[in-house]
Amino acid sequence: MATELKGLTKRSVNYSQWYNELVVKAELAEQADVRGCMVIRPYGYAIWEKIQSVLDAKFKETGVQNAYFPLLIPKSFLSKEAEHVEGFAKECAVVTHYRLKTNETHDGVVVDPEAKLEEELIIRPTSETIIWNTYKNWVKSYRDLPILCNQWCNVMRWEMRTRLFLRTSEFLWQEGHTAHATREEAEERAKMMLKVYADFAEQYMAVPVIQGVKSETERFAGALDTYTIEAMMQDGKALQSGTSHFLGQNFGKAFGVTFLDKDQKQDYAWATSWGVSTRLMGALIMTHSDDNGLVLPPRLAPTQVVIVPIWKTDEQLEAINNKAAEICQNLKAMGISVKYDNDDQKRPGFKFADYEVKGVPVRLVIGARDMENGTVEVMRRDTLEKETVSIEGIEEYVKNLLDDIQTNIYKKALDYRNAHIYECDNYEEFKEKIKDGGFFLCHWDGTPETEAQIKEETQATIRCVPYMFEQTPGTDMVSGKPSKCRVLIARAY
Amino acid sequence: MATELKGLTKRSVNYSQWYNELVVKAELAEQADVRGCMVIRPYGYAIWEKIQSVLDAKFKETGVQNAYFPLLIPKSFLSKEAEHVEGFAKECAVVTHYRLKTNETHDGVVVDPEAKLEEELIIRPTSETIIWNTYKNWVKSYRDLPILCNQWCNVMRWEMRTRLFLRTSEFLWQEGHTAHATREEAEERAKMMLKVYADFAEQYMAVPVIQGVKSETERFAGALDTYTIEAMMQDGKALQSGTSHFLGQNFGKAFGVTFLDKDQKQDYAWATSWGVSTRLMGALIMTHSDDNGLVLPPRLAPTQVVIVPIWKTDEQLEAINNKAAEICQNLKAMGISVKYDNDDQKRPGFKFADYEVKGVPVRLVIGARDMENGTVEVMRRDTLEKETVSIEGIEEYVKNLLDDIQTNIYKKALDYRNAHIYECDNYEEFKEKIKDGGFFLCHWDGTPETEAQIKEETQATIRCVPYMFEQTPGTDMVSGKPSKCRVLIARAY
Repeated sequence: MATELKGLTKRSVNYSQWYNELVVKAELAEQADVRGCMVIRPYGYAIWEKIQSVLDAKFKETGVQNAYFPLLIPKSFLSKEAEHVEGFAKECAVVTHYRLKTNETHDGVVVDPEAKLEEELIIRPTSETIIWNTYKNWVKSYRDLPILCNQWCNVMRWEMRTRLFLRTSEFLWQEGHTAHATREEAEERAKMMLKVYADFAEQYMAVPVIQGVKSETERFAGALDTYTIEAMMQDGKALQSGTSHFLGQNFGKAFGVTFLDKDQKQDYAWATSWGVSTRLMGALIMTHSDDNGLVLPPRLAPTQVVIVPIWKTDEQLEAINNKAAEICQNLKAMGISVKYDNDDQKRPGFKFADYEVKGVPVRLVIGARDMENGTVEVMRRDTLEKETVSIEGIEEYVKNLLDDIQTNIYKKALDYRNAHIYECDNYEEFKEKIKDGGFFLCHWDGTPETEAQIKEETQATIRCVPYMFEQTPGTDMVSGKPSKCRVLIARAY
Repeated sequence: MATELKGLTKRSVNYSQWYNELVVKAELAEQADVRGCMVIRPYGYAIWEKIQSVLDAKFKETGVQNAYFPLLIPKSFLSKEAEHVEGFAKECAVVTHYRLKTNETHDGVVVDPEAKLEEELIIRPTSETIIWNTYKNWVKSYRDLPILCNQWCNVMRWEMRTRLFLRTSEFLWQEGHTAHATREEAEERAKMMLKVYADFAEQYMAVPVIQGVKSETERFAGALDTYTIEAMMQDGKALQSGTSHFLGQNFGKAFGVTFLDKDQKQDYAWATSWGVSTRLMGALIMTHSDDNGLVLPPRLAPTQVVIVPIWKTDEQLEAINNKAAEICQNLKAMGISVKYDNDDQKRPGFKFADYEVKGVPVRLVIGARDMENGTVEVMRRDTLEKETVSIEGIEEYVKNLLDDIQTNIYKKALDYRNAHIYECDNYEEFKEKIKDGGFFLCHWDGTPETEAQIKEETQATIRCVPYMFEQTPGTDMVSGKPSKCRVLIARAY
């Protein structure tokens, strides 16, 4: 269908509206006619497939295997871990019946009251309970450990206010669930997976992230520690992009997952869980894109290069077709995905705008004059800079350009973020500056009360205790009490 | 955990029990503690991933793109296509509420009656309705067609009697949904996808299939034609392994998907849908496996080769380790997946039985004597034949052996099937012979009445009008009325 390319709201006018429009205009996703759910369109899904493929390989390198566990969870399972139920049993989709029947007027269907379930089933908001209920049958001895399972699946958390990719009732994700014989091994695994996420975000998504550990308030329901990666969007807000949880023996105890250790003593298994979701798509879009549309990192772009011909006569087109076919073949052989668009139903200007809004990293334009001169016009999407270069050796040129774009957008995002991280020791100053966004490194006394006060008064939250900065003790900027270290505070998505 | 390897029921004693035990003992899947749902274990899931990966590439070669549509379908959507609702709205999971709350005794959660949905939502049993409701916004002109989308997802159909992989309430599948400007193009697509399935079944699963078209009674609810591939299991029963539907304009009309054709006239889009599911796992298991366990086609085996060392002294083990590392490296370079198992906690006999039950196609055993003689013992899983061959050039030997196994198990299955296809013109003879299984080619008068009588009296159904046999008119074996052609009749899973 014809994409409406004009009229993308500028970021400076309304960042939030810019995002909402961009997701639709770039044909990444759209609101479904089902409350809170989204349709991920082929172009958006192709990016998600690239994300999946890279992450899946990285998980497997660490020994993780994929498996699949049921969509539906008996209501009683949720209650078995006390904190977990508080966090997840509230806003969820509940299956109460298993049959419909024709209505009395024979023009529709109604729920059959006879087909009521004895126990209601919940659509998984996350799968710790059903998975640890399964693990209890898999583990007898320390020799059966570790178990390193992951699943790629859909989950559902009922949301009242939704935004495409960032917060929807149904979303896609992966959830890893591991069981270990020792505390140390489990903690190491939780940290290892956070590092996998951080490396992926930086090397593939070109999104710089801050790694750290969550405050008690912000922890996953049922975790002893939640590790997180936090990215900064262009409006200075934080986007939590992946979490990894050290769950201690909470689920081992709740579901009776015991094993005989090397000394023939019974113990409960130690747990981790970790996940990233289609929310990463939101991070990707908001970090790099501009007022002309999407900017994609070459390593995750479904189409890395597009070639557009400009011609008047059939002879000209034929000559360009031949040259383009040769370039396409060479690029593909180098592992570069390329599309040649000689559709004569669309004008070049329409194509340019379309590929710009879709964020194709490199555009080549070949005209009749280029054919005569042995040149080609190259545009890089990140800076929109155009150059005319020799068509001879264009493949190598494009390859280097893709690498350069990947590096450049990472650096740009990193510079932006670093320019918006502030140390702050004065709460009044903080309250004023936070209005413009940014990450704040502030001393915190470690109490949930101070944390709650900051949130109440500024809508900002403690994102994490970051690993990356050297830490010295100080004084809480709100309470004036002693603080062990600075924490990262920001408004967040 | 320790797999209980002994005591697999023999196929001749109880085929059905053999299957149920094998799925569990080979660690492919197990019953979940949620009614009718299964857990797909890592070994089973690794096979499913191979199936997905091959099929996904084949779909994409035909221009199909992946996308994702919502899990939940508003109840009213189901009623929009009259036949579809009859087929699918009955046994399904119904979401009626979106919140739980703590119960009065504060020791569990109950459904919050305040959180009742205005319109109930159904967990998708198949996605024609939600997808065509989406397509109506994607299509304006013939230029927007065809739409070629596929999704890999979970679906749910409430089942009272379930069997792992063959019939479970929740299962995994892919569903392709295409929209076209002409009837011819849609019919061609439906047939094209059946061919993709048939080629995959025969070339990768090594499962011979009969392609054909369903009778009206057996059609997908809402289809004008349902194409099918039917495989024969070792008990002579049929297993429908994939279907592709030509849906006409039924969904285009039900959801108002119209477009302007080349002559500027409005028309409804033409539809197909097509799917295969984790049921393929059942076909794979039941076609090839034997009383010792699983037999896997090399092209879908997660581990194609296992190497087991036999040693007494540490020096012997070290020498074997070195040799095995070299072989593993060479095999991997040839694209062959190999596992070296020198775990000293398990005896060789345990390992042999374990890899046998898991169907690893080729086993190499290297003992101290072999090291002296420059030999290795090779066992092929399909025939259980052992040979001692030179360790020099073993990689090439293994490569050829894998090809040979792939060919051999296909041929074996094909011979078995062909030996159990009977032309039959006498209903009394049919009723007697069908008790032993097999496929019957019989004349049928084309009426649902005769079809129903056969099903009622013999539990056999018309599987399809097959493409592969030359057809001549005749006389219906039941009614004595004229028949246009022979149909394939069998008892089925």
